[in-house]
Amino acid sequence: MVAQVRSTSAQSVVEDGINSSDAVVFRGDGEPKTPEGLVARLAKIVASRGIEADNYSNGGVVRELEERFADLLGKEDAVFMPSGTLANHLAIRLLCAGKPRVIVQEQSHLYHDTGDCVQQLSGINMVPLAAERPYFTLDEVQKAVEESTSGRVVTPVGALMIESPVRRQHGRIMPLDEMRGVTAFCSDQGIPTHLDGARLYMMSAATGISPSDYSQMFDTVYVSLYKYFGAPFGAILAGTEDFCRDLYHHRRMFGGGLSNAALAAALALEGVEGFEDRFAEAMLKARGLFDDLNSTPGLSVGAYEHGSNIFPLTLPSGVELERFANRLAEFRVFVSAGEEDRMAPHLTVNTTILRQSNEQIVSAFRTAVGNG
Amino acid sequence: MVAQVRSTSAQSVVEDGINSSDAVVFRGDGEPKTPEGLVARLAKIVASRGIEADNYSNGGVVRELEERFADLLGKEDAVFMPSGTLANHLAIRLLCAGKPRVIVQEQSHLYHDTGDCVQQLSGINMVPLAAERPYFTLDEVQKAVEESTSGRVVTPVGALMIESPVRRQHGRIMPLDEMRGVTAFCSDQGIPTHLDGARLYMMSAATGISPSDYSQMFDTVYVSLYKYFGAPFGAILAGTEDFCRDLYHHRRMFGGGLSNAALAAALALEGVEGFEDRFAEAMLKARGLFDDLNSTPGLSVGAYEHGSNIFPLTLPSGVELERFANRLAEFRVFVSAGEEDRMAPHLTVNTTILRQSNEQIVSAFRTAVGNG
Amino acid sequence: MVAQVRSTSAQSVVEDGINSSDAVVFRGDGEPKTPEGLVARLAKIVASRGIEADNYSNGGVVRELEERFADLLGKEDAVFMPSGTLANHLAIRLLCAGKPRVIVQEQSHLYHDTGDCVQQLSGINMVPLAAERPYFTLDEVQKAVEESTSGRVVTPVGALMIESPVRRQHGRIMPLDEMRGVTAFCSDQGIPTHLDGARLYMMSAATGISPSDYSQMFDTVYVSLYKYFGAPFGAILAGTEDFCRDLYHHRRMFGGGLSNAALAAALALEGVEGFEDRFAEAMLKARGLFDDLNSTPGLSVGAYEHGSNIFPLTLPSGVELERFANRLAEFRVFVSAGEEDRMAPHLTVNTTILRQSNEQIVSAFRTAVGNG
Amino acid sequence: MVAQVRSTSAQSVVEDGINSSDAVVFRGDGEPKTPEGLVARLAKIVASRGIEADNYSNGGVVRELEERFADLLGKEDAVFMPSGTLANHLAIRLLCAGKPRVIVQEQSHLYHDTGDCVQQLSGINMVPLAAERPYFTLDEVQKAVEESTSGRVVTPVGALMIESPVRRQHGRIMPLDEMRGVTAFCSDQGIPTHLDGARLYMMSAATGISPSDYSQMFDTVYVSLYKYFGAPFGAILAGTEDFCRDLYHHRRMFGGGLSNAALAAALALEGVEGFEDRFAEAMLKARGLFDDLNSTPGLSVGAYEHGSNIFPLTLPSGVELERFANRLAEFRVFVSAGEEDRMAPHLTVNTTILRQSNEQIVSAFRTAVGNG
Repeated sequence: MVAQVRSTSAQSVVEDGINSSDAVVFRGDGEPKTPEGLVARLAKIVASRGIEADNYSNGGVVRELEERFADLLGKEDAVFMPSGTLANHLAIRLLCAGKPRVIVQEQSHLYHDTGDCVQQLSGINMVPLAAERPYFTLDEVQKAVEESTSGRVVTPVGALMIESPVRRQHGRIMPLDEMRGVTAFCSDQGIPTHLDGARLYMMSAATGISPSDYSQMFDTVYVSLYKYFGAPFGAILAGTEDFCRDLYHHRRMFGGGLSNAALAAALALEGVEGFEDRFAEAMLKARGLFDDLNSTPGLSVGAYEHGSNIFPLTLPSGVELERFANRLAEFRVFVSAGEEDRMAPHLTVNTTILRQSNEQIVSAFRTAVGNG
Repeated sequence: MVAQVRSTSAQSVVEDGINSSDAVVFRGDGEPKTPEGLVARLAKIVASRGIEADNYSNGGVVRELEERFADLLGKEDAVFMPSGTLANHLAIRLLCAGKPRVIVQEQSHLYHDTGDCVQQLSGINMVPLAAERPYFTLDEVQKAVEESTSGRVVTPVGALMIESPVRRQHGRIMPLDEMRGVTAFCSDQGIPTHLDGARLYMMSAATGISPSDYSQMFDTVYVSLYKYFGAPFGAILAGTEDFCRDLYHHRRMFGGGLSNAALAAALALEGVEGFEDRFAEAMLKARGLFDDLNSTPGLSVGAYEHGSNIFPLTLPSGVELERFANRLAEFRVFVSAGEEDRMAPHLTVNTTILRQSNEQIVSAFRTAVGNG
Repeated sequence: MVAQVRSTSAQSVVEDGINSSDAVVFRGDGEPKTPEGLVARLAKIVASRGIEADNYSNGGVVRELEERFADLLGKEDAVFMPSGTLANHLAIRLLCAGKPRVIVQEQSHLYHDTGDCVQQLSGINMVPLAAERPYFTLDEVQKAVEESTSGRVVTPVGALMIESPVRRQHGRIMPLDEMRGVTAFCSDQGIPTHLDGARLYMMSAATGISPSDYSQMFDTVYVSLYKYFGAPFGAILAGTEDFCRDLYHHRRMFGGGLSNAALAAALALEGVEGFEDRFAEAMLKARGLFDDLNSTPGLSVGAYEHGSNIFPLTLPSGVELERFANRLAEFRVFVSAGEEDRMAPHLTVNTTILRQSNEQIVSAFRTAVGNG
Repeated sequence: MVAQVRSTSAQSVVEDGINSSDAVVFRGDGEPKTPEGLVARLAKIVASRGIEADNYSNGGVVRELEERFADLLGKEDAVFMPSGTLANHLAIRLLCAGKPRVIVQEQSHLYHDTGDCVQQLSGINMVPLAAERPYFTLDEVQKAVEESTSGRVVTPVGALMIESPVRRQHGRIMPLDEMRGVTAFCSDQGIPTHLDGARLYMMSAATGISPSDYSQMFDTVYVSLYKYFGAPFGAILAGTEDFCRDLYHHRRMFGGGLSNAALAAALALEGVEGFEDRFAEAMLKARGLFDDLNSTPGLSVGAYEHGSNIFPLTLPSGVELERFANRLAEFRVFVSAGEEDRMAPHLTVNTTILRQSNEQIVSAFRTAVGNG
């Protein structure tokens, strides 16, 4: 896929009905957003509870959001960030203080998809482990840490980051035991750890371990506000009070101290209410749905080892993906026709699955593969 | 003034009525904004012309905004930025390519008030000229340029930035002749120039020279979207097509590629419509008003040499500022009671001056100083 | 091995006789140096041809040295550097201009053993390929280049570096065909290439391909001056006239513009004379020697695939390495008793092998293993 | 003066006799050096006390030199550096830890003449005070420190550097009281201080205050080894044990860990012996000489307020500088004919003044102005 052009509009092919209230969209971790939808939700929030203004992303509803997430993540404090890129970057920049080397997954978003921001702007060496795999093992981490402090030249590791679920690996996650082992080892070594938990809530829904339990293992944690909580943009970076105290200076230095962020914060605050329950319900419903679908000859929904909310879909031989997707869309059920990674199609579960009954969805799939 | 605390709400003292539709507010370059007000304006925009979605700050209404400002500023292209800090930073970072030294005013916002972002993140030396004055002269620039390339050690100047009006200098501006001289000299020397025109429209209103005429002298220009165009945040950075083409990569690298920026863009697009005329009208009305006020014994509204929309106010002796401000507020006319810089009070002209007749405002002032 | 302590003297155990004129030292690529030996050589140079002063590492004998190496390496120009670390760093810093990403071998000296200088000081992302192997393949390079420019986020590769021979891999080299393929591909892609040829002359001696032929494939090349040319310190960085013109500014910026470098340059200039022939003779003699040694029961000198001047040594079972080394030293033949990498012992060939006949050396080995 | 060309030889016009043993050279702080002279001195050192080898600038005679200077400067420890540029840079880089802003004199060598190394490579903002003057006052420092921590944006000062004597200001020095005031204030504020004492010994000779007394006021101090101690290159950076412990890692990271530095260290160690006494004698002799010269009609040697070893020279009207210099050279007395800064000529005092009697020098001057 070529580099995205700046003038490209939001979606190259806007399918009819994808924004309708009964659309089941097997794409993305959250519900599709439109400017109109955001404004409608804002109008309701203004009418019901009001929105307290912030001042350059400090105070007001932004502060309320920060306190809410500190609580949800079991951290002392939290700070609003305009993007996940900045949240991850600042976490690493501050944790590394004086030791500019961080261990990351080779497949992590920060390593591959943020323009080398950490290396370029903070002069920090990102050491990529677990090439083309979802996660690294404790053994690999121990070896990398030892190499960095043995030998004639010492370049100690300043921090370690784990992304989980891993976007580039179909949402697969790092298993809890490995995560515990690695973070405990780092803690022993005095190496602070950061969780890129952009999709932390998808991991929790898949494993039943709460976001707070995950974040307890780490010094700092980032959670996205726009991927599934319904904000137009934004991120939360949580940690100790000490860590958070002056973070807004750094946010401003990067140009991320938006002058008014209240609208985004208010939308995120509304979106997080009840989200865990809704998403758990969606995952449960999906399991039932996939069982049903798998009884359809030739159709198969698989599962990844250590997967979260993304499932590989196999069509009966002879069924062409684009045609299948188009027929499905007639029933307001949407899958990706052109896979970004040119691999087999996938179904991504989100709360839109709650909008139709499993019977309706199964029927749509069967019709679309020609068995309906 | 101590460092702003993160949990501070937007305004420590919210005066009753300051957000009412007939409030004349002699503070700030634009009209006061509230979350409710933003949402109400958005609802109108959705109802009238709609808002086309963007994709990570590219395309849709964001693109429309960019094209509108490229046109207004007489530049080939323009790019949306989340903040002026990032707009100025990226301009300098890119213009300096390979020659990391930039000449700036010592009093500029970028030199004093952005956490040394340019030096820290881009390793660029900012050479501050004109200490404690609004602008530098051609002579000073020539000397600095010569020093940088003579002598044994060559550290050539990669770019020059002019901020005008100058926020830290009560909005005073760099006179046109000096600006012409400096930018022409730089052009001769192959040194690209950037205009920090956060308040460019205030300068144009004061001098009658169009924003486009100003920006023609520079390679790149930044204009704020939230100070007076009514957006909650955002900035425009304009330049050649070449300059703008890949700018979004840099924006994302800094964490400024907001995932949905359509609401902010739509508000800015609405706010710019007719703004020049309204602001010119406001300035004209202000001149009449100040003439009237100056006929009040003891009351005096002065003017700065090379000033823009900020005017020093002298109260009759014996009139206490805070009490004066409070009485004035009863008439929905607002001035700053506690001056940020502990100097004499000032009146900042913006379009709220159009909300009451000069007679009403004069009457309010006279009452407030005890002559009413 | 723990980090080297600053107050450690040059060699923890100075063996008697290692600096004598008939010592055969199977360690290092050049002949052992002592301060006294350097002064004695300098006195001879002063007496014979004299030494023209330089000025902050420019001009005089330094310039003569630069021209000599430009010629030897078939490059337009060359610049003296105080260290190989700086030579490699500046090559990459300049070649990457504006595209701060460089492909390197994971096992390269620059990636592991220079304190992350390129990332920390130049903000360049080093992408490590070929983990724990001596070299990368064309396929791996193509994949990395493609990944850097495909996808939504573009971070193009600014340069590629090849170290050969590879110090961390027992001097193994990148085969010519692979080197040709990779550098040709880079050239097609507009990606400049740099050769870390610290030990380029060892590679040439092993393959018969001249230093100049190797360096023709690359835009820039670094060669060490102190490892085997007898200078106390220093390096050469060669490239086009354009590349070299302003390099001394960068050298000074890093603090590498030594105020007088004439002595080091004069010693290097003397050391390079006839070196290729002497080293070729040494390698030829080594082959004969190893054949002879291999006829000794239990003793075996092996060879690496794509090796250069380092050969693995196997002792007869029951022979203890330290005792063996000590007995050998009585004959002024020196091997490393304590291997830095805790692996099997190795013999490193250099021109000291010419100081004794193969018969003498074989006899010493046989005595030392108890067969003499 | 245009930028120095790389191929320029050491001195564009080598005057006959300037390197002879009775040459009095009123230029530079030390005695002229030639490669031959360095080698001759090295041969004597080898013959008398020997030179213990170092290992990558650690241990041996290098360590001896470090301990000698730690003692001379009254500091816990000291580290050898290849250049003053690197010594100053590393001092600031380490002292600033986490607060990348340093106050310096605008006229300092580090601000003007090192290619913006601190800003470019360490991302530290150098705040230049005392434009075009030799030193800043306590008031100016207090104001700069306050500005950096007041206001909305906090960018605290991480360190303060004082250069004294100031090379760009004819060796003028910062008076002791001001230096005491500034360093005491910084100490109270928790701001570490660094002395660029490249020519510290010239300052001590002028004021009678010992190098150790000066350096006690600062956390770290740099002294040049090649300007007057007779080393070909090198510098000392002294401070606490803690500060020095890992400094060699940073030195290596910048490419400054020269593989063998013993020769330079041995020369510096020899050069420092008795230097203070010899230089004090030279300054005393100079005072007598200048009194004598001032009795010559039209000839005048002045003195700077807070000067050190550089004195302005006024020739009788009608006497042309170049012709005067040439005639003087016939008596082996050398002054600069072409002043670098195109100002009036100056006499720089160093120990070469001890090589001729004042009577001889006066006679030479009188002859050269035509009164002899």
